[in-house]
Amino acid sequence: MARVSQEHLDARRRQILDGAAVCFARNGFHATSMQDVLKEVDLSAGAVYRYFSGKEELIGAIVTEVLDEVRETFEEGARQSPPPPPDVLVGWVMTKMLHKEPGLAQEGESILPRLIIQVWAETLRNDHLSTVINEGYAKVRGGWIKVVEAYQDAGMMRDDVSPDSVARTMIALAQGFMAQMALFGTVPVSVLQDGLRGLMSMEEPGPRP
Amino acid sequence: MARVSQEHLDARRRQILDGAAVCFARNGFHATSMQDVLKEVDLSAGAVYRYFSGKEELIGAIVTEVLDEVRETFEEGARQSPPPPPDVLVGWVMTKMLHKEPGLAQEGESILPRLIIQVWAETLRNDHLSTVINEGYAKVRGGWIKVVEAYQDAGMMRDDVSPDSVARTMIALAQGFMAQMALFGTVPVSVLQDGLRGLMSMEEPGPRP
Repeated sequence: MARVSQEHLDARRRQILDGAAVCFARNGFHATSMQDVLKEVDLSAGAVYRYFSGKEELIGAIVTEVLDEVRETFEEGARQSPPPPPDVLVGWVMTKMLHKEPGLAQEGESILPRLIIQVWAETLRNDHLSTVINEGYAKVRGGWIKVVEAYQDAGMMRDDVSPDSVARTMIALAQGFMAQMALFGTVPVSVLQDGLRGLMSMEEPGPRP
Repeated sequence: MARVSQEHLDARRRQILDGAAVCFARNGFHATSMQDVLKEVDLSAGAVYRYFSGKEELIGAIVTEVLDEVRETFEEGARQSPPPPPDVLVGWVMTKMLHKEPGLAQEGESILPRLIIQVWAETLRNDHLSTVINEGYAKVRGGWIKVVEAYQDAGMMRDDVSPDSVARTMIALAQGFMAQMALFGTVPVSVLQDGLRGLMSMEEPGPRP
């Protein structure tokens, strides 16, 4: 058997993951067969099973990878100093996520929103993946709480609301908009930013009189 | 064969739908078998197949029902006059949805958030259900755009942002918070309202200078 470089192995593994992600985004984890994946990546069963023992392992690899990428992007966004205002920060995170994996783009549109919905559905029925997403969310929230505290310290936001509540709300905005993109088709991220600026204009800053 | 009243037929149908919804919220549509549903509702196969020809029909009935209830609640919220501010309106819609179906409560917690994630995942792979959710969303957005226009007419919100963008953003908040409740456990709706009030305090109302 010919020896193959690590680079080749990595590229082949990436090719399988990308093809499987396309299948899963299109049809969900459970209605996708390994045959569908083999057809999408145009490889033999032998070639694919060399990397993944079966569909469950492939699902685990993809879910973990998506959750890691989402977590890293949210954490990176919150590390910016000084923290950008919410419309800029949420827009930055959304844009970054939608452009992260060139392999995840189909006809110029990211398949990430659809894949994320399937990932959420899968974490609900898998205790291990549920733990992974819960730990990731706790880390992300920690970073975003600091951002909110910075808004309040700078007098940009009333300080009688809990930073944790605002962090959860900003993260919910990104999650909800991701769901809309999956369910109703791609909308420019600027729409979310525009909408958030509208909401941000509704009350004067500072504590209630 | 004994004659049964329409009331009895309706109650039995409701019982099957509620039990199936519990199974689907727990394990997703595809990993749930008709055997799981029969066990959950404690009825014979004959009794259940009298109402539904099989799992696909049951899935279709539940997805359509959930989407109808969500759409009605969002539309009802937007019909309030004068429209309540965003934190009150989004909180009202969330609370109403979480308390809508007594049959959907398990140990005092609504299974709706988990069911909604599964419903979203299912609509992505079913053209008919995708059409249903898209039509529902268009109707909901129409109502919420009017709410935003009322905010702007009353001088409560800067008027250089598109009402459609703000409507999408408020709906995204509810969707994202529903996803968080499914993925990370129940959190009081007041957390979302508190967080939204924080965001609303960030800029002075009215158009930019």
